Amino acid sequence: MLILGLDPGLATTGYGLIETDGVDVRAVTFGIIQTPPHTPIGERLAQLYAELTMLLHRYSPQAAAVEELFFAANARTAIMVGEGRGVILLALAQAGVPVAEYTPLQIKQAVTGYGLADKVQVQQMVQLLLALESPPKPDDAADALAASICHYNATRYDELVKGVE
Amino acid sequence: MLILGLDPGLATTGYGLIETDGVDVRAVTFGIIQTPPHTPIGERLAQLYAELTMLLHRYSPQAAAVEELFFAANARTAIMVGEGRGVILLALAQAGVPVAEYTPLQIKQAVTGYGLADKVQVQQMVQLLLALESPPKPDDAADALAASICHYNATRYDELVKGVE
Repeated sequence: MLILGLDPGLATTGYGLIETDGVDVRAVTFGIIQTPPHTPIGERLAQLYAELTMLLHRYSPQAAAVEELFFAANARTAIMVGEGRGVILLALAQAGVPVAEYTPLQIKQAVTGYGLADKVQVQQMVQLLLALESPPKPDDAADALAASICHYNATRYDELVKGVE
Repeated sequence: MLILGLDPGLATTGYGLIETDGVDVRAVTFGIIQTPPHTPIGERLAQLYAELTMLLHRYSPQAAAVEELFFAANARTAIMVGEGRGVILLALAQAGVPVAEYTPLQIKQAVTGYGLADKVQVQQMVQLLLALESPPKPDDAADALAASICHYNATRYDELVKGVE
């Protein structure tokens, strides 16, 4: 099973694709999609959409885990965050990929066991869990991998519960 | 020249297309794009995107005027507003339609001469300016027509200023 984690943003969207057979988990690819500042927002959204759509066509993930945000410095920032998220959720829906959303707290909890872990702790635990040679960088890519691990844990837990019933 | 006004929303997006030869202005079409509540947000965004893209293909407007929002009850609402806006700005960018954004204040000011006009006043003035038989309904469609009139006024003003220089 391929799970795509996404840490959405208009300037930088982190992505992290993991593959699992239910026993082992490995990172397939991870990185960031960046859009240039000082560029009309429509163009930036079109670029984000095109790159994410390419990624979805190339790997055909079975599920997506998207980091969810509920707070922002102000309404204008929140609307900008939403604009990026809207395009990401559109691309996933068009590709038929089911989406699960997790808060930053849930994601940190899932990989470090501690909801208030800092970025370095998240990177180190993601490195450990995916047996990577070095901590995944940049932060946004590490967070996206953490989101996909969080989703894997959640579905595995659901299956275990189902197995017991 | 065809100008498409848009009043963006995830549940309801108003649209209003006007045509002008630089002297007269008439409404070509107006209405709303609605997406069903209690439906996954990705599906709603995909529906909004599909209907707007169809509209853009059918009429090929030369410009779009989008209502801009800076405030919201809370960050969650603002993010949802942004999600709808993001998909709208994406569709416009992909169709190569230049976008101008106007605040509700600017739009009301443009059609009624009064920034704090209420919805009924906006509908009545839009009816008058476009010589419609009845006030355009619903509110969101009237607001979208008002946005396109606002853009027409702004471009006409720019041209007048240029003519004097």
